[in-house]
Amino acid sequence: MASKVSQFMQLGRKIVAVGRNYKAHAHELGNALPSKPMLFLKPTSSYIAEGEKIRIPEGCTSLHHEVELGIVIGKPGSRISEQDAASHIGGYILALDMTARDFQEEAKKKGHPWSLAKGFDTSCPVSGFIDKDKISDPSKVRLWLKVNDSLKQDGNTGDMIFSIPHLISYISRYFRLEEGDVILTGTPEGVGPVGSGDVIEAGLSDVVTMKFQVEQS
Amino acid sequence: MASKVSQFMQLGRKIVAVGRNYKAHAHELGNALPSKPMLFLKPTSSYIAEGEKIRIPEGCTSLHHEVELGIVIGKPGSRISEQDAASHIGGYILALDMTARDFQEEAKKKGHPWSLAKGFDTSCPVSGFIDKDKISDPSKVRLWLKVNDSLKQDGNTGDMIFSIPHLISYISRYFRLEEGDVILTGTPEGVGPVGSGDVIEAGLSDVVTMKFQVEQS
Ligand SMILES: [Mg+2]
Ligand SMILES: [Mg+2]
Ligand SMILES: [Mg+2]
Repeated sequence: MASKVSQFMQLGRKIVAVGRNYKAHAHELGNALPSKPMLFLKPTSSYIAEGEKIRIPEGCTSLHHEVELGIVIGKPGSRISEQDAASHIGGYILALDMTARDFQEEAKKKGHPWSLAKGFDTSCPVSGFIDKDKISDPSKVRLWLKVNDSLKQDGNTGDMIFSIPHLISYISRYFRLEEGDVILTGTPEGVGPVGSGDVIEAGLSDVVTMKFQVEQS
Repeated sequence: MASKVSQFMQLGRKIVAVGRNYKAHAHELGNALPSKPMLFLKPTSSYIAEGEKIRIPEGCTSLHHEVELGIVIGKPGSRISEQDAASHIGGYILALDMTARDFQEEAKKKGHPWSLAKGFDTSCPVSGFIDKDKISDPSKVRLWLKVNDSLKQDGNTGDMIFSIPHLISYISRYFRLEEGDVILTGTPEGVGPVGSGDVIEAGLSDVVTMKFQVEQS
């Protein structure tokens, strides 16, 4: 029987994303390693499912792919302990944290918010809901991404700087987590640009694959 | 009869906020005037209503008040024209964009996202829903805020840099607006710190007033 939380796209009200949670990815963009999780928000209006297209936002000349493991919150909570974190996980998704890298670089330089760079419509392509019992250990799953059949990202959640229990605990000290909310746990190295007509394919271990086409908006 | 949109706190899925939309406020924090609206997100989990308390987030030593006019979206849309913008307004709220100024200053300096500084739990105290016909011209309303009976902010929406129709149009080019979503339109000058035990009172013209107490979390 499908649980309510499997309808996270309709049910959830926020997406909390973590930046620079893989060492090699922080380095490839010339960033320092974070001393605490770096959090940003994407709105739920940015979700798309397979069959819908990723649209390059107006004015963006450098749209990047980032493949990520998403945690779907199954039980609400604030100030969740690391010990209790697993009990708040309702399931998983595979997600792309599509990023207007030029908007983000400008924001970083000026000290402006990242919201436009990270939250534009279609910036959060997702797989279907993955039952919790399909992934026995979320700290050891392979994440990969191809652009037009060429492998660009191939990482493992074992390389996260901050673990999933730590992320859930840290985030919930500031943001109350609600049923259907999603946490995007960061991307491994290999991010890069995509353009109109490109096809992105991504996969999570042997559990799920998904495909999205990019087009000009 | 109460409309569905009056339940924006439960119905809405995002809060899009505008930074530096009043000239004197941009200057008081030493910021340049924006050439386009500066957007950031607050999660709906940050809403509180009268009777609930504003809680200083863990580690914050400079919590600031910002009083703002909020637009509640009544009709969904993307790429809304300025001419059509008014028809997408479902009503209004008076809101506080509570800001962990120390977190924000650190984020600005490092080029990090603003989400924690702006989106922590209780960072969006709001009035009840205000029917659209209660405010005949949203571009000419007084906004004021007192801390412990001392007047700190006293502005008028007539001093906005980017008008409400322009904001709705610009935002909807990037973020699809949905029923119950809220736009916070920026704060006039006079922002400043509050501490545990302080009482904030705010008002919108002769339409509504509201009161919130601050406490350590
Ligand atoms: Mg941000
Ligand atoms: Mg990412
Ligand atoms: Mg503000």
